[in-house]
Amino acid sequence: MAIRTSFTELFGVPHPLVLAPMGGASGGALAAAVSEAGGLGLVGGGYGDPGWLERELDTVADATDKPWGAGVITWAASEDAVRLILSYRPAAVFLSFGDPAPYAVLVKETGVRLICQVQDVAGARQAAAAGADVIVAQGTEAGGHGSRRATLPLVPAVVDTVAPVPVLAAGGITDGRGVAAALMLGAQGAVLGTRFCATPESLYPDWAKKRLVAGSGDETSRTRVFDAARDFGWPAPYTGRALRNAFVDAWAGREDELRASAQARERFALGHQAGDPDVGLVWAGEGTDLITAVEPAGELVAQIAAEAEELLRTAARQLDH
Amino acid sequence: MAIRTSFTELFGVPHPLVLAPMGGASGGALAAAVSEAGGLGLVGGGYGDPGWLERELDTVADATDKPWGAGVITWAASEDAVRLILSYRPAAVFLSFGDPAPYAVLVKETGVRLICQVQDVAGARQAAAAGADVIVAQGTEAGGHGSRRATLPLVPAVVDTVAPVPVLAAGGITDGRGVAAALMLGAQGAVLGTRFCATPESLYPDWAKKRLVAGSGDETSRTRVFDAARDFGWPAPYTGRALRNAFVDAWAGREDELRASAQARERFALGHQAGDPDVGLVWAGEGTDLITAVEPAGELVAQIAAEAEELLRTAARQLDH
Repeated sequence: MAIRTSFTELFGVPHPLVLAPMGGASGGALAAAVSEAGGLGLVGGGYGDPGWLERELDTVADATDKPWGAGVITWAASEDAVRLILSYRPAAVFLSFGDPAPYAVLVKETGVRLICQVQDVAGARQAAAAGADVIVAQGTEAGGHGSRRATLPLVPAVVDTVAPVPVLAAGGITDGRGVAAALMLGAQGAVLGTRFCATPESLYPDWAKKRLVAGSGDETSRTRVFDAARDFGWPAPYTGRALRNAFVDAWAGREDELRASAQARERFALGHQAGDPDVGLVWAGEGTDLITAVEPAGELVAQIAAEAEELLRTAARQLDH
Repeated sequence: MAIRTSFTELFGVPHPLVLAPMGGASGGALAAAVSEAGGLGLVGGGYGDPGWLERELDTVADATDKPWGAGVITWAASEDAVRLILSYRPAAVFLSFGDPAPYAVLVKETGVRLICQVQDVAGARQAAAAGADVIVAQGTEAGGHGSRRATLPLVPAVVDTVAPVPVLAAGGITDGRGVAAALMLGAQGAVLGTRFCATPESLYPDWAKKRLVAGSGDETSRTRVFDAARDFGWPAPYTGRALRNAFVDAWAGREDELRASAQARERFALGHQAGDPDVGLVWAGEGTDLITAVEPAGELVAQIAAEAEELLRTAARQLDH
């Protein structure tokens, strides 16, 4: 049994499940594990560091013959980074956070599929105009960078706006219930991030994986503190959802001061490096409530797909004739 | 055909659809229309004004023999307001925004069902401990007052936390797709607010209904500006989601100053009264993208239920054997 959607048809994958291309989590090993299990694994190219990208793209290309892809942060990307990814002949390039137009032509002229992630209806219009083959509607409940709109109402609004372009749902999806819900909303699949951070294959340090297992969605918040601490120039309206800790509480609302203090930023870097949970950064979505163990990515794909399939198979039983 | 869940069984209603008890929108006529169509209509008692409550409870009690209920804002409620509602022998009392314990005993000793709306997992635990018969998990995408967590990840987390208490989903649900998604997440039904504001029966003024039809979810935001303008003492963490306008943009971040300025508050009151969209308050959830017309509440109930039923009936078709 498998779920067939226009997304699974387009990529020739058995499951409508995509690994979010998360910098610092989605390396080649995690992407390959998801692809091998029948999802679409995406390497998280982040800010486009060429050394990191080459190493992780070598890893995924060596580890799987199944379709895989890679993503970069649009506003931070360079033509070189996108060309480097394209040189590996991936199944898809994933662009998020900014106008995809500058790179869209580059991707599409190679015949590689373009997946654009958007955070609102206006962004979906922009992605459709740029020629996106797939549009991801990302809700605010997602871990890491994102914006304000929430997944449940955003997905059908984007579906209606960009039809017939296939839409995937991202943000807050952690198990088969979330995947089945996404399909009911009109999505053709789901992008999961935080759930795959708590896997042996993820690049998260062990202390951060433990915090995901222990943490609740109630403890996450969208913040600019960690971007200030790392002196990254994320433009409005993007913020990052992470587990709250003493460091966030101390600097929330004082991000400019933090950015200006080399000493405070050094304290963050050292605390994070040391795995101090009161200081360190753990990007985490609200779905972290449903993460109760570190589990292999391939097993998660199988388990989440099976749970979603069972929900679809038995959905009509709720009807009373 | 109808959807049968533990919620529809508990109340003996045909559809797992609930009208949110919205102050300023859900009067007796709207609640009766939803109940007559097979949902559960709830009068929005708001801050508990006895004259208003008596008039609207008279209206709903006269207009329908089907199950209906009424809600109040927990932190603003009084024992008198709750006793007044109970004197009408409603099917349910709905409490939201604060610890329900002080009124829970009062409701339950009369045999009336207690529905508690919560905004996070911690609140769900509190509601279960207070003996709630039904718990509503309300996401941040909801119109009007609410908090930070989003519907899609909150619902399954609450379901797992309070089982076997039935859970309803609220926030961002506007059509049958949202209702079917809520059921996949493990909810036993859905609470709809903003969608029912754009009905002839709603107490919203016509200019506000027009703005809901024209507006997009991208244009809403959670704000404290309107509570400051009305000098209402909403406690943290509650904010209200409304359509953004020039008034919100002018006062965001300066709520204390607004509250202290009788002149500015007067300007708001006059502008709102006059239906000036640059000033006036239109509570609106993110689902407003999907509202394209003012439609009778009863027709909406039938249409939304039919759409959800069709999605459940055909869900298994996405499976490929």
